[in-house]
Amino acid sequence: MRASRFFISTLKEAPADAEIVSHQLMMRAGMIKRLGSGIYTYMPIGLRVIRKVEAIVREEMNRSAAVELLMPLIQPAELWQETGRWDKMGAELLRIKDRHGREFAFQPTAEEVITDVVRSEIKSYRQLPLNFYHIQTKFRDERRPRFGLMRGREFTMKDAYSFDRDLAGMQASYQIMYDAYTRIFNRFGLKFRAVAADNGAIGGSGSHEFHVIAHTGEDALVYCPTSDYAANMEAAEALPATAERAAAAQALSKVATPDATKCELVAAQLGLPLSQTVKTLALTVETEKDGKTAKQYFMLLLRGDHELNEIKVAKVAGLADHRFSTEEEIAEVYGCVPGYLGPIGTKAPVTVVADRTVANMADFICGANDAGYHYTGANWGRDVAEPAIVADLRNVVEGDASPDGQGVLTIERGIEVGHVFQLGTAYSAAMKATFLDENGKPAPLQMGCYGIGITRILGAAIEQNFDDKGIIWPTSLAPFELVLCPMGMDRSEAVKQATEQLYAEAVAAGIDVIVDDRGLRPGQMFADWELIGVPHRVVIGDRGLKEGNLEYQGRRDAEATAVPVAEILGFVQGKLAQ
Amino acid sequence: MRASRFFISTLKEAPADAEIVSHQLMMRAGMIKRLGSGIYTYMPIGLRVIRKVEAIVREEMNRSAAVELLMPLIQPAELWQETGRWDKMGAELLRIKDRHGREFAFQPTAEEVITDVVRSEIKSYRQLPLNFYHIQTKFRDERRPRFGLMRGREFTMKDAYSFDRDLAGMQASYQIMYDAYTRIFNRFGLKFRAVAADNGAIGGSGSHEFHVIAHTGEDALVYCPTSDYAANMEAAEALPATAERAAAAQALSKVATPDATKCELVAAQLGLPLSQTVKTLALTVETEKDGKTAKQYFMLLLRGDHELNEIKVAKVAGLADHRFSTEEEIAEVYGCVPGYLGPIGTKAPVTVVADRTVANMADFICGANDAGYHYTGANWGRDVAEPAIVADLRNVVEGDASPDGQGVLTIERGIEVGHVFQLGTAYSAAMKATFLDENGKPAPLQMGCYGIGITRILGAAIEQNFDDKGIIWPTSLAPFELVLCPMGMDRSEAVKQATEQLYAEAVAAGIDVIVDDRGLRPGQMFADWELIGVPHRVVIGDRGLKEGNLEYQGRRDAEATAVPVAEILGFVQGKLAQ
Repeated sequence: MRASRFFISTLKEAPADAEIVSHQLMMRAGMIKRLGSGIYTYMPIGLRVIRKVEAIVREEMNRSAAVELLMPLIQPAELWQETGRWDKMGAELLRIKDRHGREFAFQPTAEEVITDVVRSEIKSYRQLPLNFYHIQTKFRDERRPRFGLMRGREFTMKDAYSFDRDLAGMQASYQIMYDAYTRIFNRFGLKFRAVAADNGAIGGSGSHEFHVIAHTGEDALVYCPTSDYAANMEAAEALPATAERAAAAQALSKVATPDATKCELVAAQLGLPLSQTVKTLALTVETEKDGKTAKQYFMLLLRGDHELNEIKVAKVAGLADHRFSTEEEIAEVYGCVPGYLGPIGTKAPVTVVADRTVANMADFICGANDAGYHYTGANWGRDVAEPAIVADLRNVVEGDASPDGQGVLTIERGIEVGHVFQLGTAYSAAMKATFLDENGKPAPLQMGCYGIGITRILGAAIEQNFDDKGIIWPTSLAPFELVLCPMGMDRSEAVKQATEQLYAEAVAAGIDVIVDDRGLRPGQMFADWELIGVPHRVVIGDRGLKEGNLEYQGRRDAEATAVPVAEILGFVQGKLAQ
Repeated sequence: MRASRFFISTLKEAPADAEIVSHQLMMRAGMIKRLGSGIYTYMPIGLRVIRKVEAIVREEMNRSAAVELLMPLIQPAELWQETGRWDKMGAELLRIKDRHGREFAFQPTAEEVITDVVRSEIKSYRQLPLNFYHIQTKFRDERRPRFGLMRGREFTMKDAYSFDRDLAGMQASYQIMYDAYTRIFNRFGLKFRAVAADNGAIGGSGSHEFHVIAHTGEDALVYCPTSDYAANMEAAEALPATAERAAAAQALSKVATPDATKCELVAAQLGLPLSQTVKTLALTVETEKDGKTAKQYFMLLLRGDHELNEIKVAKVAGLADHRFSTEEEIAEVYGCVPGYLGPIGTKAPVTVVADRTVANMADFICGANDAGYHYTGANWGRDVAEPAIVADLRNVVEGDASPDGQGVLTIERGIEVGHVFQLGTAYSAAMKATFLDENGKPAPLQMGCYGIGITRILGAAIEQNFDDKGIIWPTSLAPFELVLCPMGMDRSEAVKQATEQLYAEAVAAGIDVIVDDRGLRPGQMFADWELIGVPHRVVIGDRGLKEGNLEYQGRRDAEATAVPVAEILGFVQGKLAQ
């Protein structure tokens, strides 16, 4: 490519609405251009990176015997009604009416359509397994689109859907995709981590997220450096902070704690560590029976310095549909104001649910169910009955024991860019997608689904790889692998000849090269390519040529390296192969 | 590719709603699958063909220094309101409201968005010329989608937009695109024709359509076999059928023609040729002035066997916004019922507009403005004043003189798959897209736009290339270039070895090959590949191998050719190079 036939448009300053570095740098490098809220034109440089991402994804999907097709963007509401997602999805689903008033969805994913395709195509177990994928535009009408391509509304995703005859087959298909994703992210040249995830609303029995590691990541990833354990914060299992409960050493004592409605304030007033306090959360569960609403009350106990994990709470038997109790309910049930609740003296109808760590605490501090007072020296069994339910209710913290017993947990930040799901029969049962098994009997297809956020990869890669000059692309994703910067191509015949020769050789060697023939001053030229983030640069100038040299500089290099003209191509090829 | 790892699903019968052969064959070959009216999933085989079309288009666009980007599907209404297309486009434009009630269009084309991009990027004439393109999904909410991919609602289009500083620049950019299109359609291996077209509603000063020639085409193409002249029916200029008017030879005579309200009936009753008759069309033009509606009346005259060309009529001065007169208007203005109108005796406020051919007729037959009567032997100048306006009002017919004076016109049928337009400043003026010229003064950008219907190419290619067995792809568009059909791969080690060896050699030679390892019976296997239309086939069987031969058969060949094993790769390569 010659820069004069391409389109390069860089900015000194990012627009004010670009909050994060990847958004700022993509705008400044002219990779994207905003059309509307969460909607971007992919400018020529941005599109080149997208195509590189797509090509790697496509190659590895094909290598895994997944078959590419292309499903429509505009999908009839009727299919979405079959699975109930038409109602469940809410305002994020962009709904459209055609000229005849028929309803459609702009696809955010394609489970319904692929299941519809497969139920009409697949008759027999002999046709299985199958894995279909497409790389296609998606739309999610986010309430607050932001961060450029990280949380846009119109974006590109690779979504794949596997179909198997049984659970073992589905798990095998899942593993094939897990392995393909590992190859894909390795080929991207990005630091990433796969973590176990909660299946959430989509249902099914297992899933992993693939995250690009970045300090600025929205998600907390939990892993054990001395074992294979890795999970996202929602799914990471928290063990008790102490393996066993210590014996009671203190007497129960009711102490005045005026205006101390939070554990931090209590600990500060009493001069005791926060980790000795227990915080209390009051929950209500409403159930309908015979047309009447019945209420159940639950008291959740967490160590004062721990964070509640809502997803874990919802998994406790009876708590799937809980809400926080109102002040009125708390006054009625506990006879106390919020901020001073505690387990001691609490009785039916309240069920006490203690986090595993709390259940192992001794001599703890908790509310006295009396405004302005807490207990110190509280102990299970002696001062209060053992909790009715002990469960994992909290987020893990650094230093927690790994659930696999092989070390302690560490936490890092990540950006979710891929997700693999074991769906099971959630969609196939709803849509009556069956096949005839070996005995000629209809059975529902076992499904998996597998997504990669193609356009999001760009943002994530930049969040991981940038400096104060701009983007630093891994070679496999770079818009160009190599840029040639001639100094005064118009003035110097020697520079022009050396440039054209190297350009021709690089093209012939299959290097994705651009020559900057725009005639800019060196400073401006270098600033552009450092901002755009091309990983390898060769400068061709009269001074170097006099000594038979060109100047190579990698994007992360502090200085240039003089390389003899005859050796430069091999030198660059060596760098590209690294 | 191995068929066992691909997805092939053929049908014996096409669904009832598939009216034309390309739709039937695409459904039967498993290329597409209907999701809704005018909305299709591109199945793996169909997608492969689409990708081949896209790759050729992309290569030739890049070769022409056009720069690829990707504009969003969902576009804010505000941009469409700037050009007035939000109101003009009617029900074909799919309109969408987001969760906040903001209005958007699903793009049918992208003039507004690219002009918006360019007006913010281009400051100076030094940045011109520019040509941006994208290959992107489009949606047009057709009233009656049909013919599979030929008239779908969701489809893929390549659209390009050029920007120049002046008219000469725009014309040069236009010519570059015209030449690129010519290379593209040649590389497709399709018989095609570029014809001059009317610019229509899009405005501007020149355009050509690219048509794939097919008997089943919707459009009539007019061309002169002995010159370069070619135009579509809307644009083809019709000269008078006779170069000069003959002298009057008959006396005017009023004859009874009961129940003969059409020229065909008059000619039959009188036993005279239809080409001697003149048909009359009454038009009304309403104009608003000072809040009042004024009406003007026009009488159009065409030879009885000629067809009206509405687009030409609209170009006659004063007739841009005409409609057919009502029966009431005809009774009031002409004092006669429709079917018996004619120019003789017609006076103000009626303006007579004669087609060029009619203006040169002598001794013609026309209505007598008296129910049940016609005149014969009518002559201009003698019986009726010369027509106020003489214009080209009709479609050309075979045998008409070519407008370039270099032969006679022929008509063939075509399917429109590409269109190049000189837009001029229609969009840039409306959207204030200007640049600073050499004198530092702002001037509007001169634009061109250039479309290719990517998915439509599939239908058009099939309409041109099929037989009773199925599709016959040109090699450049085929889903696979070569299929290997082993006979009894499971039973015969020799067949298996020969197949695997040839497969490996073909892959290494860069041939897009599929080996059919599905274990089907030969008849079924051959029928599938003939239906799918793979252009080259090699059969590997024990019988041939005993004599050291494999069997090659081209998709259009009546018989197979025995080729020695050692020569088969070169033989196939020779066929591919043809």
